[in-house]
Amino acid sequence: MALESLRYRRGSLEVRGAPAIALLGCLSLAVELAGGAGPREDLGALEEFVGQKLGFLLTARPTAANLGREAERLRAFVRQRAETPGVSPQQLRESIIEYIEGLLEKDRSDNRSIGAHGASHILGRVAGGGPVTLLTHCNTGTLATAGYGTALGVVRALHERGSLSRVFCTETRPYNQGSRLSALELRHDGVPVTLIADSAAAAAMRERGVQAVVVGADRVTANGDVANKIGTFQLAVAARHMGIPFYVAAPSSTCDPALASGRLIPIEERPGTELTQLGGVQLAEPEVDVWNPAFDVTPHELITGGIITEWGVFAPSELSQALAARDGR
Amino acid sequence: MALESLRYRRGSLEVRGAPAIALLGCLSLAVELAGGAGPREDLGALEEFVGQKLGFLLTARPTAANLGREAERLRAFVRQRAETPGVSPQQLRESIIEYIEGLLEKDRSDNRSIGAHGASHILGRVAGGGPVTLLTHCNTGTLATAGYGTALGVVRALHERGSLSRVFCTETRPYNQGSRLSALELRHDGVPVTLIADSAAAAAMRERGVQAVVVGADRVTANGDVANKIGTFQLAVAARHMGIPFYVAAPSSTCDPALASGRLIPIEERPGTELTQLGGVQLAEPEVDVWNPAFDVTPHELITGGIITEWGVFAPSELSQALAARDGR
Repeated sequence: MALESLRYRRGSLEVRGAPAIALLGCLSLAVELAGGAGPREDLGALEEFVGQKLGFLLTARPTAANLGREAERLRAFVRQRAETPGVSPQQLRESIIEYIEGLLEKDRSDNRSIGAHGASHILGRVAGGGPVTLLTHCNTGTLATAGYGTALGVVRALHERGSLSRVFCTETRPYNQGSRLSALELRHDGVPVTLIADSAAAAAMRERGVQAVVVGADRVTANGDVANKIGTFQLAVAARHMGIPFYVAAPSSTCDPALASGRLIPIEERPGTELTQLGGVQLAEPEVDVWNPAFDVTPHELITGGIITEWGVFAPSELSQALAARDGR
Repeated sequence: MALESLRYRRGSLEVRGAPAIALLGCLSLAVELAGGAGPREDLGALEEFVGQKLGFLLTARPTAANLGREAERLRAFVRQRAETPGVSPQQLRESIIEYIEGLLEKDRSDNRSIGAHGASHILGRVAGGGPVTLLTHCNTGTLATAGYGTALGVVRALHERGSLSRVFCTETRPYNQGSRLSALELRHDGVPVTLIADSAAAAAMRERGVQAVVVGADRVTANGDVANKIGTFQLAVAARHMGIPFYVAAPSSTCDPALASGRLIPIEERPGTELTQLGGVQLAEPEVDVWNPAFDVTPHELITGGIITEWGVFAPSELSQALAARDGR
């Protein structure tokens, strides 16, 4: 798949989930390079070719942070390698491919760490130590990452420990990632899952004993605000009202310390047809005015459980500092 | 249409909106009586016939209060007329038909009053006196009442006064009454309306300047708790968080003073297929576990704007007393 195919297409999200978009973008570049694409004789020209491909990738999803971060890191890696004395264009090409293959493995192991940290934190917080009933939104599982998942990684880790009573999945309108993907992959893995309408989330918290809400993130800003699938903000408000801890599970690469707060995150608005049509069924008049933001911003004060990363669970206000201390940003 | 056709049918809500169900049930009885159905010679037998038909009606929608109230009132009226000295079975029959025709007219005029009271209250509350931006849920308009509507009656009254900037309609999953009905009838009347996903409601309140939320009700209990379409509770929590007044528009007949609180309201749970299928499109695996309550209960403390009735706008805690003073309940 060429990088261009990841660019925004009106009316469809062919590859989705912020980690998967970043990974697939990089992997498709690796496949192109392995197939011999790009300049073969000139280090600078190869570096420029990779830079152009990464530029395409960045236009795919303006809300996601890890896309930009991965592209930036890869670009820095390429520059460093290209400037290393004695490196041939073929060696540069091979090291880029190797670097990208490492990203795939890192995503898997990071998700396992997120799952383990999140499961322990949640079990430490609920009365009696579990088993727990969770609620999640959208899809953050094997179909949105390289495998295991972020928020669904936490769900899986609890299930593997025998500490998951049930997880409620919202259908996640308008694109139904909850009903089409999360419910499917959890059932496939034998995880007890119940599908609900997005509108039933607060009622499920109150009536069905939900003990924690866990969602993913497309971008986390320096102050701990979180951009994620539309509806996340509403769930956080409901969880706060009900006194239920609200967690965001995201790899550290999702954090964007360059942005001070969530108000600065660009929010992608998608076509109204996502609400007026569904698989050929007309749900509303085609001419009706529609407001269809793909994401919303949850302010840090509503993330009462914490932000679950591969390095541990942090209060939103502590995240930036913790990450800076870790990777010297 | 015979009364029996109003009974609950798996997978379809052919007539909907609590006021419309009560009215249509009574009207179909009037049509049967006008067509000569039921005993012709015996007052007691005619009274029993009407009682049986009303019994059918009561099984149609356990959550709605006005259904039971209208049936009870009609039964009392029939008894009183049957006991009036010198009344013939034909006179009894005609007076029942006349009584029911009066209900239709009363519903229309009550909705006009609700609209007027609600519009004035909202305009008195917002800064600058309007025009206002509203958000509503489900359908409470001409397609759920005998005409004009309850919450949509308030929307229409504001629009007629030139004081409505815009109304946001949630699509109202899983049955899409917002996209199929509210957006349709408001556009038909030239009201500026924008359709949103249920998940986008809190974001619309914050990002799109929503100044008040107005919804309908299926039942209001003595303490002012409100049962209404699933998702209402979540909207009320979001409105409270954002400091936006939350209104319930409902005729006084929706109030059920016999029930102390919303915890006692029976909540209808509907088939999972409403979430897994849509017009032949499969949205999720057919075997997936689904929790699909049709209604939820909003506790009175979240109804911060007030309850809008044909007699005025009341704080939830004052409603029962106000109604008792009015009609001597």
